[in-house]
Amino acid sequence: MIIILKKDVTQQEIDHIEGKIASLGLKVHVSKGTERTVLGVIGDEAVIRNQPLTVLPGVEQVMPVLKPYKLASREFRSDDTVIDLDGVRIGNQKIVVMAGPCSVESEEALLKIASAVARSGATCLRGGAFKPRTSPYSFQGLGEEGLKHLDKARKETGLKIVTELMDPRDAELVFEYADIIQIGARNMQNFRLLTEVGKYRKPILLKRGLSSTITELLMSAEYIMSQGNYQVILCERGIRTFETYTRNTMDLSAVPVIKNLSHLPVICDPSHAVGRWELVKPMAKAAVAAGTDGLLIEVHHDPENALSDGVQSLLPSKFSQLMEELKPIAQAVGRKI
Amino acid sequence: MIIILKKDVTQQEIDHIEGKIASLGLKVHVSKGTERTVLGVIGDEAVIRNQPLTVLPGVEQVMPVLKPYKLASREFRSDDTVIDLDGVRIGNQKIVVMAGPCSVESEEALLKIASAVARSGATCLRGGAFKPRTSPYSFQGLGEEGLKHLDKARKETGLKIVTELMDPRDAELVFEYADIIQIGARNMQNFRLLTEVGKYRKPILLKRGLSSTITELLMSAEYIMSQGNYQVILCERGIRTFETYTRNTMDLSAVPVIKNLSHLPVICDPSHAVGRWELVKPMAKAAVAAGTDGLLIEVHHDPENALSDGVQSLLPSKFSQLMEELKPIAQAVGRKI
Amino acid sequence: MIIILKKDVTQQEIDHIEGKIASLGLKVHVSKGTERTVLGVIGDEAVIRNQPLTVLPGVEQVMPVLKPYKLASREFRSDDTVIDLDGVRIGNQKIVVMAGPCSVESEEALLKIASAVARSGATCLRGGAFKPRTSPYSFQGLGEEGLKHLDKARKETGLKIVTELMDPRDAELVFEYADIIQIGARNMQNFRLLTEVGKYRKPILLKRGLSSTITELLMSAEYIMSQGNYQVILCERGIRTFETYTRNTMDLSAVPVIKNLSHLPVICDPSHAVGRWELVKPMAKAAVAAGTDGLLIEVHHDPENALSDGVQSLLPSKFSQLMEELKPIAQAVGRKI
Amino acid sequence: MIIILKKDVTQQEIDHIEGKIASLGLKVHVSKGTERTVLGVIGDEAVIRNQPLTVLPGVEQVMPVLKPYKLASREFRSDDTVIDLDGVRIGNQKIVVMAGPCSVESEEALLKIASAVARSGATCLRGGAFKPRTSPYSFQGLGEEGLKHLDKARKETGLKIVTELMDPRDAELVFEYADIIQIGARNMQNFRLLTEVGKYRKPILLKRGLSSTITELLMSAEYIMSQGNYQVILCERGIRTFETYTRNTMDLSAVPVIKNLSHLPVICDPSHAVGRWELVKPMAKAAVAAGTDGLLIEVHHDPENALSDGVQSLLPSKFSQLMEELKPIAQAVGRKI
Repeated sequence: MIIILKKDVTQQEIDHIEGKIASLGLKVHVSKGTERTVLGVIGDEAVIRNQPLTVLPGVEQVMPVLKPYKLASREFRSDDTVIDLDGVRIGNQKIVVMAGPCSVESEEALLKIASAVARSGATCLRGGAFKPRTSPYSFQGLGEEGLKHLDKARKETGLKIVTELMDPRDAELVFEYADIIQIGARNMQNFRLLTEVGKYRKPILLKRGLSSTITELLMSAEYIMSQGNYQVILCERGIRTFETYTRNTMDLSAVPVIKNLSHLPVICDPSHAVGRWELVKPMAKAAVAAGTDGLLIEVHHDPENALSDGVQSLLPSKFSQLMEELKPIAQAVGRKI
Repeated sequence: MIIILKKDVTQQEIDHIEGKIASLGLKVHVSKGTERTVLGVIGDEAVIRNQPLTVLPGVEQVMPVLKPYKLASREFRSDDTVIDLDGVRIGNQKIVVMAGPCSVESEEALLKIASAVARSGATCLRGGAFKPRTSPYSFQGLGEEGLKHLDKARKETGLKIVTELMDPRDAELVFEYADIIQIGARNMQNFRLLTEVGKYRKPILLKRGLSSTITELLMSAEYIMSQGNYQVILCERGIRTFETYTRNTMDLSAVPVIKNLSHLPVICDPSHAVGRWELVKPMAKAAVAAGTDGLLIEVHHDPENALSDGVQSLLPSKFSQLMEELKPIAQAVGRKI
Repeated sequence: MIIILKKDVTQQEIDHIEGKIASLGLKVHVSKGTERTVLGVIGDEAVIRNQPLTVLPGVEQVMPVLKPYKLASREFRSDDTVIDLDGVRIGNQKIVVMAGPCSVESEEALLKIASAVARSGATCLRGGAFKPRTSPYSFQGLGEEGLKHLDKARKETGLKIVTELMDPRDAELVFEYADIIQIGARNMQNFRLLTEVGKYRKPILLKRGLSSTITELLMSAEYIMSQGNYQVILCERGIRTFETYTRNTMDLSAVPVIKNLSHLPVICDPSHAVGRWELVKPMAKAAVAAGTDGLLIEVHHDPENALSDGVQSLLPSKFSQLMEELKPIAQAVGRKI
Repeated sequence: MIIILKKDVTQQEIDHIEGKIASLGLKVHVSKGTERTVLGVIGDEAVIRNQPLTVLPGVEQVMPVLKPYKLASREFRSDDTVIDLDGVRIGNQKIVVMAGPCSVESEEALLKIASAVARSGATCLRGGAFKPRTSPYSFQGLGEEGLKHLDKARKETGLKIVTELMDPRDAELVFEYADIIQIGARNMQNFRLLTEVGKYRKPILLKRGLSSTITELLMSAEYIMSQGNYQVILCERGIRTFETYTRNTMDLSAVPVIKNLSHLPVICDPSHAVGRWELVKPMAKAAVAAGTDGLLIEVHHDPENALSDGVQSLLPSKFSQLMEELKPIAQAVGRKI
């Protein structure tokens, strides 16, 4: 921690600040510059990070030296984390594709979509049984019935199941059925839910919040990891900006940034990022070129009649075409798909 | 619902769109303009709002005519909602002040702060027993013990208790102790939590999410109200923007906007909005001038040693001074404090 | 300047960094912490601020110690700057009100509005002769003819004239007619224009850019001041955020923040900030309560037929009423209006 | 134009609105729905677009039917615009690479970089002679001397010259030397400068403003085109968001969106978008995959000592490597580089 003092700081104020730091078991290194005196705090920064040092008289600014997360950091673990789901490996050379409908709507529809995406090369099936909807009057998902349909689809296709958990009270149920448990963007800082899923030992797909920084995303991963569950997959799905033409603004630079800062795998969800099916293709390609470890893509056989997110869903035929077009790009960046 | 068609739309496409609308039990009114044909949908807009109409061939743009919320709207109820807590009335001519520490830290500290803020004119005591913290390594609150301290403070001072609920599993416990239950900014779209608190019959203080529009805030209020709990207090607490000097950017225009759109009371939290104690005073004054129904202000007797949010907490003496300075402003806008 | 080194920095890298700093005539102070080595640069920070230090091998992060502006800073001048225009003093105890139409449309209309706002207590007349319009097909202002109308209005009412300069080629002309020269939000970082107006000796009203930080606003003031023109009035007029209900989001906390950081006067433009006339009143009041030195308000006698910004213009009668309602608020914060 | 009326609109108000529309030479089509009456305006929307209709009593909301730009729209011209510079074609199957230093620093340095980027496959040389800098104390560019160095580099390498124009007073000079004239992000809404460059007949490279929507970018292109200069190249260079890890957030979805809305070529500037050289590579690849028509990349042979933007400049060797790595991606999307 670096503490920059005010120009007119008094010796008494400096003594008080040093006393405060000493009381936390840390040492101070004083550096008098031409314009300002700067204090360097020596010792474990975690002890002092949450102290409201800027209220101390004489303090102008406080700057942390270390990142606020540890287990999620590249420094903690220099090798990439690879998550292995009976052969489906996430964070590996092969880019993982998770595709399927926004919501599970019926067994029949789900099986139709599942077999189509499996044929095209997806290895995971996404589909919501519990749906976070902006309006209380919108379709909220089929609940346990939806989970059963997902289970059926898994048995029939061999696809791994990705589905969202919204409520800690449903954790047992959802963990029973799902292979990967998704935490949605609106719950990225639902800390009790993060703590809950940290107690299980299945992979968590953690979506970046609409207005969350990359640092906050890694802090939320840290919440899960601090409970012992190290299998966290991060997901860029668009952030909220002033631009309204697209549903959100896809922050693709998050992919190489997270790769620098963390050892965790990172995937991209172009469907939610852009919110229009005709933009999904170019953005999926861009994500692969930027180095994503996976893609999460909404596919529906009848978007006109989808109960949610029809506007951003690809038809199975378009998805199949996209998968073909992604292959040479993956190869160009030394990956497979 | 207004549907603007593409310039080159075919009659077959128009027939298909009309068929889709008819299948929902609605009628269509066709208006051919110079440049575009526009369809007006006649009937209950709620039926068609979530339909992915933009995927229909020939559709360029879809525009809803009505607001997506109903119970929360000024149209549904033209008179202001006033929430009455045994005499403490929120949404009334008298501006309600809720003050106290960010977290409940100990019984002794809480009682000291509570009696100070009561003396200065606050009628509600704020204090967190369950704390949403960005880091898993930060103080997470005292839990039930904190609720007991709040109860004690209520008995000693007569202040009403405002405290946050983070997890539906704690709902019974928190509703037992609190007079007003706070839903934090990060949980504004935790829809399961909203549904849960909608089942109770105590006032809910709903904070605006960091990147939530005013419409989304009203939709979240609608979630609570759709369960039968009509006692919702909205709270502007700063939104996330590119400006980093302040913790958030306080969107004070939200106060008159919400007053236009909704009958619900709206209060302001300058402490979280700006994140620096020296800015709380001018922004509290500005909030009163803009027409707020209440203020939520962090007060701590020893900010240097606060376990959370020390940087933005006022000393009791400064809070007392602020309360005095707010009086003539309240009077100038026809209110009391 | 503080330089935080990477965990695995080598001695050779440190030597190279120290050499680079020494080559700029500065000294280095090395501080070895538990986790990181930190270099403090001793000497004039201005010399090193624009050096791309983060590209040096071994550097993790670079933190400036000083603000990047000097002449505009409170440190440079501790007393408030008061700008005096033959008795109209800006930055003084009396809040200055600048009112008038968005565009000068005709002599007759301008005189009608000018006499109305003068009667209600405004001391400056705003009105654009050169108009920045998003569309090339919109009314672009009357040009010199508009300036002549403003001159006429000044003679008839005694109001000081505020008008916008968009192009350095018009500087001579506009400086001849105007008392205060406005630099619009979209030109806040038109550095050539800033340099140009810095050469004159009349007050400049500098509006904050739509996505400019407070620091950048002060840097743009520094541009003007660096040319010798110290009469700069800063103006908060709303920033661009994700919220679309209002035209922009008014960042009222900018007022007390700028008062802390700078000695320059700061005024507010609620008309552009919110973009709807019915919100101008509460936000003007809030601005006064927050400590603004002045208000810039659009007034039009016939908003329905205004050539620009009719939606956000107040009728003279509403403006007059607002002026009355502002008086007790100004008084409550120790000011006059 | 669609006008949605308030629920409680009176017949008198409707008559007034219809009268207003009739006075503009347009017709009205009334559609009474279940909840609202909607007026469709028949005739040329351009006539009514800038009318402040929302101030008319009884009006709730106004919705334009058409886009506000015309010449820049895909509807105006369905074929892609291809700009031809003696064989260097922009907007064509071959992706154009414009590379070079941020600023022209000296003839020697420029020639060194120019020959390096030419060898690696760039066809245009970027380099600023007039530099927009946030601080008045930073290097402002070499001016005409810089233009002469660029001219020399063109003669030696055959590269086309891209350089920025900041001030209409320099237009003649810059147009004399440059092949492509750049309008920087901070000048995207410097309407007088746009009008000026619209009078010439050389290609304009128009960078998206930091907080400009895609619609506003196209409106600025319209400004240039409305003067008769149809050779406009649009450039995505990152927008300002809450994320601070990168300099800006690169909005890659702007590429396919602009391709849908406009016939103009669109290129990407990953260097400014991310602001860190190590992120330029993945984002350049992503831009190609997303369908960009060109890349603008900062290259410097000695970033440590660059006078501006050293942090985001690639070494020539890294640039050369990037060019190789881009080839298979370009091929994968049916392009060449």
